Amino acid sequence: MNSKFIVIEGLEGAGKTNATAQVVNILRQQGIHDVVFTREPGGTPLAEALRQLIKEGVDDEPVTDRAELLMLYAARVQLVEGIIKPALARGAWVIGDRHDLSSQAYQGGGRGIDVRLLQTLRAAFLGNFRPDLTLYLDIPQDMGLVRARARGKLDRIEIESLAFFDRTRARYQALAAEDERIVTIDATQPLSVVNSAIRTCLTQWLRIQEFSP
Amino acid sequence: MNSKFIVIEGLEGAGKTNATAQVVNILRQQGIHDVVFTREPGGTPLAEALRQLIKEGVDDEPVTDRAELLMLYAARVQLVEGIIKPALARGAWVIGDRHDLSSQAYQGGGRGIDVRLLQTLRAAFLGNFRPDLTLYLDIPQDMGLVRARARGKLDRIEIESLAFFDRTRARYQALAAEDERIVTIDATQPLSVVNSAIRTCLTQWLRIQEFSP
Repeated sequence: MNSKFIVIEGLEGAGKTNATAQVVNILRQQGIHDVVFTREPGGTPLAEALRQLIKEGVDDEPVTDRAELLMLYAARVQLVEGIIKPALARGAWVIGDRHDLSSQAYQGGGRGIDVRLLQTLRAAFLGNFRPDLTLYLDIPQDMGLVRARARGKLDRIEIESLAFFDRTRARYQALAAEDERIVTIDATQPLSVVNSAIRTCLTQWLRIQEFSP
Repeated sequence: MNSKFIVIEGLEGAGKTNATAQVVNILRQQGIHDVVFTREPGGTPLAEALRQLIKEGVDDEPVTDRAELLMLYAARVQLVEGIIKPALARGAWVIGDRHDLSSQAYQGGGRGIDVRLLQTLRAAFLGNFRPDLTLYLDIPQDMGLVRARARGKLDRIEIESLAFFDRTRARYQALAAEDERIVTIDATQPLSVVNSAIRTCLTQWLRIQEFSP
């Protein structure tokens, strides 16, 4: 089977870390051990420096929505060209904590940036590159925020309004509904049920991949 | 007369600092005292942090050309929305040390990024916003590098090959030739001649602006 790029998506606190561990376990059981982890924004020294600017800003200067989007894309391009594509090319699998779907949900849904601008950027800078499979962990924002708060100080994006996260979630749901490469997991369920759903979904998907051209 | 955005462009060492001082003097003599200076990339705390990343990179990680372009645009959008447009709106004049023409020359000419990608980014993120007048200081790269080296350590872009700067200069010259809002100044001439050329050009331009609708 060719190497694949699998992405975990969802609001903060949706359980992405747990889901990543589940995915790795399942891949190992299938004999896939060469796995590269990435996170966005971040995953290279430059992209991590951009992550810091995106999440914290500088000196309380308001960050314009469009500059935020461009910084996210700078970090993404650097990660895709420098890490993800080379890893896939040498046969490693890549598991991503967030990818382009986050920009579509947060910047498109949450911030209200025109979807045509997002499509233009995506086409210009990512071309046809996209994840083979995305697991979207769906939770209402209040549930996620409780978990995110428990981890400590909230960053510039985590302190956004509840309406912002409602719009982000709605966009996630809409995009997942229209794209068969995105699987929605109800992450409000007990952990054992979530894990079981991830296992069922991923195992089936791997079986299909094995027999596809 | 409405406030204007005047940009000084050229290779490193072309004499942009001197030209800026000349422009300010001429504006003062015309009774224009409310002048805001900007530089690109930079000019706001966030944009200056991006400038640092663009010029120095992080941990010797190679910066992809497209990530560089996106960081430049992030800094530009932040500066235009946060500083330049508000300054022009309140009636101040803005003098910019570099603007979008630099990306067209360095990233388009020097790096060889497709001009359509540059046009797409420009249209998507700057729309119709552009300088009212650009003074392009034309010098061969060897002359500029001598001056830039005299200032101290060269940054990630200044250490590029001579061919890179030749391509950048050629693109500057071509773009200046086809756009009447860009005036080319031969910056290889003695300083007094350069200053006189800037004075003649700017004074004439101001006179035209005064009588234009």
